[in-house]
Formats: sequence, structure tokens, C-alpha cells
Amino acid sequence: MSDYNAPVADILFTMKTVAGLDALTALPGYEDATAETVQAILEEAGKFAGEVLAPLNTVGDREGCKLENGVVRTPTGSKEAYRGFAEAGWNAVAFDPDYGGQGMPWVLTSALQEIWNAADMAFSLCPLLTQGAIEALQLHGTPEQKSTYLPKMISGQWTGTMNLTEPQAGSDLGAIRSRAEPTAEDGVYRLTGQKIFITYGEHDFTENIVHFVLARLPDAPAGSKGISLFIVPKFLPNADGTPGQRNDLRVVSLEHKLGIHASPTCVMAYGDNEGAIAYRIGEPHRGLEYMFTMMNNARLAVGIQGLAIAERAYQHAVAYARQRVQGAPVDGSKGAPILHHPDVRRNLLTMRALTEGMRALVLYCAGALDRAKRHPDPAERARNQALTDLLIPIVKAWCTDQGVRVASLGVQVHGGVGFIEQTGAAQYFRDSRIAPIYEGTNGIQAMDLLGRKLLRDRGQAMQSLIAEITGSLGAVDDKAALTAALRTLEQATAALLKAGQNDLPAALAVATPYLGLCGTVIAGWLLARSAVEARNQSGLAPDFVTAKQATAAFFSSNILVEAETEAARVTKGGASTLAFPLDAF
Amino acid sequence: MSDYNAPVADILFTMKTVAGLDALTALPGYEDATAETVQAILEEAGKFAGEVLAPLNTVGDREGCKLENGVVRTPTGSKEAYRGFAEAGWNAVAFDPDYGGQGMPWVLTSALQEIWNAADMAFSLCPLLTQGAIEALQLHGTPEQKSTYLPKMISGQWTGTMNLTEPQAGSDLGAIRSRAEPTAEDGVYRLTGQKIFITYGEHDFTENIVHFVLARLPDAPAGSKGISLFIVPKFLPNADGTPGQRNDLRVVSLEHKLGIHASPTCVMAYGDNEGAIAYRIGEPHRGLEYMFTMMNNARLAVGIQGLAIAERAYQHAVAYARQRVQGAPVDGSKGAPILHHPDVRRNLLTMRALTEGMRALVLYCAGALDRAKRHPDPAERARNQALTDLLIPIVKAWCTDQGVRVASLGVQVHGGVGFIEQTGAAQYFRDSRIAPIYEGTNGIQAMDLLGRKLLRDRGQAMQSLIAEITGSLGAVDDKAALTAALRTLEQATAALLKAGQNDLPAALAVATPYLGLCGTVIAGWLLARSAVEARNQSGLAPDFVTAKQATAAFFSSNILVEAETEAARVTKGGASTLAFPLDAF
Repeated sequence: MSDYNAPVADILFTMKTVAGLDALTALPGYEDATAETVQAILEEAGKFAGEVLAPLNTVGDREGCKLENGVVRTPTGSKEAYRGFAEAGWNAVAFDPDYGGQGMPWVLTSALQEIWNAADMAFSLCPLLTQGAIEALQLHGTPEQKSTYLPKMISGQWTGTMNLTEPQAGSDLGAIRSRAEPTAEDGVYRLTGQKIFITYGEHDFTENIVHFVLARLPDAPAGSKGISLFIVPKFLPNADGTPGQRNDLRVVSLEHKLGIHASPTCVMAYGDNEGAIAYRIGEPHRGLEYMFTMMNNARLAVGIQGLAIAERAYQHAVAYARQRVQGAPVDGSKGAPILHHPDVRRNLLTMRALTEGMRALVLYCAGALDRAKRHPDPAERARNQALTDLLIPIVKAWCTDQGVRVASLGVQVHGGVGFIEQTGAAQYFRDSRIAPIYEGTNGIQAMDLLGRKLLRDRGQAMQSLIAEITGSLGAVDDKAALTAALRTLEQATAALLKAGQNDLPAALAVATPYLGLCGTVIAGWLLARSAVEARNQSGLAPDFVTAKQATAAFFSSNILVEAETEAARVTKGGASTLAFPLDAF
Repeated sequence: MSDYNAPVADILFTMKTVAGLDALTALPGYEDATAETVQAILEEAGKFAGEVLAPLNTVGDREGCKLENGVVRTPTGSKEAYRGFAEAGWNAVAFDPDYGGQGMPWVLTSALQEIWNAADMAFSLCPLLTQGAIEALQLHGTPEQKSTYLPKMISGQWTGTMNLTEPQAGSDLGAIRSRAEPTAEDGVYRLTGQKIFITYGEHDFTENIVHFVLARLPDAPAGSKGISLFIVPKFLPNADGTPGQRNDLRVVSLEHKLGIHASPTCVMAYGDNEGAIAYRIGEPHRGLEYMFTMMNNARLAVGIQGLAIAERAYQHAVAYARQRVQGAPVDGSKGAPILHHPDVRRNLLTMRALTEGMRALVLYCAGALDRAKRHPDPAERARNQALTDLLIPIVKAWCTDQGVRVASLGVQVHGGVGFIEQTGAAQYFRDSRIAPIYEGTNGIQAMDLLGRKLLRDRGQAMQSLIAEITGSLGAVDDKAALTAALRTLEQATAALLKAGQNDLPAALAVATPYLGLCGTVIAGWLLARSAVEARNQSGLAPDFVTAKQATAAFFSSNILVEAETEAARVTKGGASTLAFPLDAF
């Protein structure tokens, strides 16, 4: 077990400087989200996360979930923790006040998601998936569907799941085979099919589970334009809103996974008998389109998991490096802990700089998301929507890749005991590995960035971001380094735009390094900006300012320099990728 | 379970081109190691590895080892596999023919170690540790000690262990507290103390286990110059060589680890009662020095584990990418597997190029080791010893870091199923993570490279290697890229030599990126050379030549470009590492 202390000061600082919290508070509907309120909420969340969730992280990993006679038993303490979480209102922060939500900005929700996931990533997947279901319903449900399900899902009384994947349909959801047959009643169907990788598909937290399921209608066109979205509750709600008749669906088995053991990953069977009662959401055949409308938030949330696991791994490694004495440090200190060894400091600073870089990127993106939703000026909304769309695949893939990297460094800092499970560092390494995979693999993110975000608007959103960065270079400390990195981004972008028109496979072959380049440069810029603002802001603790500037300096000379390599891959690496004969692998 | 096919063709090609197998065969004592014999041995090893060991890899991971009443039960089938391994003579390949060994060159032993570790890394640790013990005895034992233990350890009838680490003495072995009290008999002691992380410290493979233990004599000076080396057999040998009286030592517990579950990692207690009978090896207080004499082979062996796990992960990922159909590839193929997607090819080629680069580096180093031992010309022996000493920390750290990276990519290629334990990809990811830690953490390797290998001889060995690389640039394909990378290595080396004299902490702060730079450039050079030689050699399959050249081209434009980033860290990254205040972590 390890302690977790929510980094409230850095979160709040980053919200203010990078996401523009004060301006967000001025947006219609966000008036309550003052800096004071946000700080109070973060502190309260940090307390709950540190006291209730963080101690369960190890328990959940060791015990895992058990399937017995169709019932999933979650690990000791998690059911009670979930009740506490829901009762404290944490589930409701982001959602529509008309249905019991608190209507807070996404920048706050994102910060809270960092805190929950750092404390217990496997636990936090339950509210994370429920969030996706709530959004789908908010956007596309009928008034009746909303009033039936939203209050209970927003309060956390019921949870939600997303049923997309089937054995033959993972990244390619167009290959879904689950079927929904119309009944005599309009909008009501009998659904059959098997779904895999269903997170919290079954559990003992709540009296009901609301499954959101993708399936085909009998008259559906082939492929991705023939998929519809359905609500399939575990228990059909009675007229009074209580759970009624058991629906024809069941958990078949649980996966034995590398990590996130406390999160039950279910194989679900729908319609073994008469077919599961399913209520269509929105219009027929538009299910995948509806999924896309909530994809930004879901992908942001997974990117946040990369940040969260990195923060936790960093705190764990620092604590060890402060107490482990080994060897005589070169600084001449006697009996000093390994924190004094320059190579250990390099590892810890790499972890720290990447973590703060991720946090800045996440909150910058969340701020854009909020402005895209709420800004009174339509042009500002459009600009921020384009920025959000551009950033989302970068946040998802870059942060989750860095999450694995930081967790791996965390193991390394511990030396031999890092490989022993009791130490805890290994769990972060295992847990972190799912995030580059789910919610669209990082390869899919890179293709999304290239195809939908860069080529489709001929680089406009990216060029607008590059212009914003260029405009703010004046005051930063290591201006030469950032200018050089930005130039490589410009050149790589130009090269990719050209390749995308002339030779799409060649462009796709370097989409991943391009995404890495984007993440590194944008995070480096945001940290450089943060260092300047830390210096100029009044009221910050001097130690905080020193640390922020030193972290930014480390990022500039040790992480930002990765831009050169990624850019070289983008401009030179595609041809050799495609030239290798497929038979020769 | 996954199949494993030993890459005999590439191993043999690399032995010939990079390690100079033909010249090695001409060295005194290695006359039997002709290319034909070596090929036959590799093929036989590949068969044993693929048929016997590889299927046990999954079983061993799932079952792990169990400690019951002081007895360690290894997983189903491994005891029988060990007997088959020993009976086939695989344990004896590298060792002194006077004691039943086959006296083969280390380049062959290294290739075999790749094959064993790729098939089953946890199993292979048993012969790997025995190898260390055999070497210590060959070099420093009395004739009587040798005749008592060597034949049984070389045949594999008994195994050996290395007992170094104690809770307070990991990287810093000078802190060892275990004690050996003299008895009336010369060279015989009573040893007491606790040792941790003892690989195969107890098991059911053999009738006896010979522990090699570091401990202090009562009159020992403090620190690293007061440690002696002892033989502490589990059963004291009778006059006729059979195991006799049980010694006062026992396994206390087994560690629950992230990976290599089939390898029992033991806490060992010596001398709970009257003190364990211990026989001193060599002179008092010179134990650590003796350890250093066998360190090169042990570190090379761990570097090989990085290579081995990468090869296995690559084969596993290619097999999946050949059969998994998902999405419509951009090359227009219909119903084609994901191998057709450019981003999947990038991942697989990254895995492949790194693996072949590691193999070249490993065998180049092993060839130097053989020449250092057997070359008739003392100047050549000295030159090759210096080259070996320089390369060892690079092989150990670079290959094990790349092993984790390749295993992680292997998980990624599998998508969602990669995170499910049954798939097997996750096990390589878990197993790979120990190699950057044990046998000296990679941070220790970087300090060794900087302090003992670069600063001590003022860069001579490195400059001689750079001169060798420079001299062979004429014929390579992507000469500009390699020349540029080599120049960054030259500049970084010069910068580090200077920093090492003026500011040692600053040099230590960038030792890790310097090691990464060395690994990348040397592996890139060896692959570039290999591509040229593949083209010029007769008798190679055309497909092999094509693939070798294409892999080298991919390495040049996608991996070698990492040199720039590592070099930038070396020249610019140290100051910010040391500037960060320790209190601010």
C-alpha cells in the first residue's frame, strides 16, 4: 500500500494558467466554478481519494473480482467505497442540473478524474463508463428515457456500461453482428449477441446496471452505417422507477488480465432465451455516429488515466528514494538516501516532468472543451471545438504512452524490490498498460489525428495552434529550444500534409511518430508558459515557483529534445516501413 | 502458449559477419567450433527449445513455484525439462574440458543463451546462475574444490547459486553483514546471515545445490575490501562425491514477483543453528574482486535476456498480426490481416530492427570476449579485453531496456487481447521488466560505463571503437545517417570526458543517455555492416538478404535517429537534473 496525496496546488495552478479557469468561470452556466469553489472541491476530493480509495488499490489488485453463479463479487471494501463516492455526489459533478447533476466545467471533472484514477484506476473505471452512458443519453435520448435513467445514473444509484466490442469487431466496429429484432411496441426490440471486454458489465455495487449496446437492425445496411444504439437494462424499470423484471442478459465470464484486476472485464451474453428487451436510442443506424459524439470525453478520460498512473507512480518512487540508503552519493552526503544519486534524480525528474507535462496538456484540452460547449461567441466555440478535436487523440495516445513509461521508471527507481508485487510499483506498471489499448488503440489515435484532424481541414487547426504557440514564445526561458522544436513540428506537419495527398500509406506509416512529436512539443510549450506565469503570479509559494521552473527546464533539455527524433521519423521513416516485404516478417 | 522457432539463420549469419566466427575457429582451443558444427548445435538447441522449453513457459508462469515445508516445488514439467537439458549436455558447452565441459567459444554460448531464454526465461535462470558459480570456481578455486564441484556442476547434476544481496546491501555490496567465523580446520568456516533475491536458491531439480556466498571474516576491513567468497553446499559432499550431511541453511520464503514466476527467488537463512559449513574460495577479503572477474559474462548473459524476450515477443506478435483480420487496410487488400496496416508494420519493424540490432551487439561483444581470452597475440587480447569491458555495460543496459520496449510493443500489436493473460504477450512484458534491474541496475551500468570504462582510460577504448566504425563506413548504405550519428557520439564522448574531469556529478547525471547513445549507434553500425555483407556473401537465401537490408534501412531511419536526442541530453540535460532542489521532489 502507498499513500496518495492529490497534487491540488499544481492542479489548481495548471487550471488557472493553462486552462484559463477565471475566464471559464465567466462562461454562462459555469458561474459557480470560482477558483475558491474549485479549490475546495479538489481538496475534498483529495481527502476522499487519499483516505478511501487509495488504500483499496492494492486490495483490489490482489483480490480481483470473482464470478460465482452469475454474480460478480468485487474486492473487499469497493462496494462501500462506491456508495460513499455516490453519496458524496462525486458521480454528478459534470452533468445536467435538470437531472440532479452539478453542471461543473469539464476542466474540473478532468482534474477530479486524475485524482480518482491516481487513487484507484480500476475502481474509477466504473464512474468513467457510467459517464459515457450518461452523455449518450443526455445527447440522444428521448425525454422519457432521460427522466427514467438519468437521475439514477447521475446520482450513481445505477451504473452504466458501454457494449461495443465483439470478438470479430474491435477497432473495426463496422463488423458488429449483434442483432435487434423489432417488437410490436415502437422503439422496443429483442436483442441477441455476445459482447466482450465489457468493463463493469456485472458487479455488486448497485441494484441495477444500464447497458448501452450497439447492434444491427434486420434491415441495417452493411458496415458502420448500419449500427444502432440501445438501452438494455439489467432489470427493466417499473413505472415507479424501481428495478423490475430481470432482462435476458448475463455475464458469461471474467477476463484474467495483466492489470486493473479490481475492474470486472466481462463477456456478456444477450438474448440466450427470448431475447433481451432493448430500447433504441435516437434514430436507427446512427449508433456509431452517436458514439462519436461522446468519444472526445471518453478519450480525454483515458488520457487522464495515463497522467493519473504517472502521478501515483511518481509519488511512490519519490517516497522510496527518500528512505532507501544505498551507496555513497557523489555529492559527498553521508548516509543519504538514493535521492542524492544523480541517475535516480534523472529518473524521478523524467517522471515528474512528463507528469506535469501531461497535466498541462490534459487541462489545456479540457479548457478548450468547455469553451467549445459554452462560449457565447460562435466563432470562439468553433475555434475551440477544432482545437479540442485536434488535441483529443494527442491527449489520449501521448499521455497513455507516457503513463507506461513513467510507471516503468517507477519500477526502476525501486531496484530489486520494484519487481516484488508487495512494493506496489509493479501494479502501476501493469495497470498502466491497458490505457494505450482501450478506447481506440494509440495506433487508431494516430490515424485519427492524421486523417480526421490534419488532412480533413488541410492542417488549419494545427496551423492555428502553431500560431498560438509562436505568439507566446516571447517570454519563455529556453526560447531557442522551444523555437527549434516548434520549427520541426511545422516542417513535419507540412511534410505530412503533402504525403497525405500524394501517398496516404506513407503518411499513415508515420502517423504515430507525428503524434508523439505533437505531444512533446505542446506539453513542452505549456510547461514553458507555466514557468513564466509561475514567476509572474503573486501569491504562489516560493518553493512551488522554483520547482515549476526547474521542472520546465528539465523538460526542455531532456524531453523536448525527443521532438528531433520523432520529426526525423516523420520525414524519413515511412519509406522503409512500407518497403519491408510482408512475407519476410 | 505460443510457438518459438529459434532464428538459427540470423544467429549464424550474425556470428559470421559481426563476430567473425571463422577467425574465432582459428583460435587455439576453438578448433572444433567450425561453422558446420556451430550450425548443427544451434539447430539441435532450437529443436530442444521449441519442443521442450517453449511449451513450459506459460505453464511456469501460471503455476509459479511453491514453498512447502522447506521444499520448493517447481512448476509441472520443469524438473523433467532440466534433466533433459543436462543429459543433452547443454549445461557444459562453455566450460573447461578437463572437468567435462565442451570448451566452446562464448559466442556460441551466447547464441544458445538467447535460444534458451527466448524459449523460457525463468527456466534458463537456473543454468545461468550455475554458470556464474562455475566460473568463479574455475578461476579461483583450489584443485580440490574444482575436482569436488566442477564435474557435477558442469554436467548439471548439481546447480550453483550466487548469494550476494542482503536487505541493506543491494547495489552497494560493501554493506554486506553476513559473517564467517573460522573453525579449527584451515579454510573451513561457520557462516551466518540472511541473503535475499537468491535465484534458484532452493528447488527440486537436483540432489544438491552449491551456494556461493559473500560474507565477512571477523577481522575484515569495513566496506567492499572486507568481503570474502565461500562455497556453502546444501549437502556437504562425502569423500566419494555423493551428497552427505545437510548443511545449516534453509529457504525462508519465496518472493511474489511481477514476472519470471517459474524461477524461485528465495530468501535464504544461513546458520540458524550451529552455523553453515563454508569453504573459502581464494584469499580472504577478495570476494568482491572475484565477483568482478565473472561479472562480464553474467552481465552479457542478462543483456542476452533482453534480446531473447524481444525475439519471442516479436514472433508472437507477427503470428497474431498474420491471422487477425480487422478493418480495411489502406493497401486495398480485402479481408487481409492487420499485418497490412502501416502502423502495425511500424510496430513490428521496430520490434524486429531492435531485436536484430541487439543480436548484433551481443554477438559482437561475445566475439571480443573470445578473442580477449584466446587470441595468441597479447596485444590483440588486450585490445579485445578493453573492447569487451567497454561493451558489457552497454549490452546489459541497452538490450534490457530495449527488451522491455519490444515486449511492450508486442502487447500493443495484440490490441485488447494483449492485455488478457492467456494471450501470452503480457507475460513477456512482465518477465522483461526484471532484466534492467538485476545484475546491476541499468543506472549502475551507466555509471560503470562512465567511470570505469570511459574516464579511467581517458576514452581510449571508446575512441578505438569509433575509429573502427569510421574505418568501415565506406560501404554502408545510409552512410550520411551513420556518419551523423557517429559524429554525435564523438561529440558527446568529448563532452563527457571533459565533464568527468571538471564536474563528476554533472557527468553522472547524463551517464544513462550516454549509454543509450552508445547502444543505438553501435547497433546501427553493426546492422549497416550486416546489410552490406549480406549483399556480398554468397550462399544466402535471397529473401534473407532482402529482409536484412530492409531491416537495416528501417533501423537507420527510425531507430538510429534516437542518437540525436540522447546526445542532446548528454550535452544539455545534466545541469537541469542537478539544479532541481532535493526538497522539492
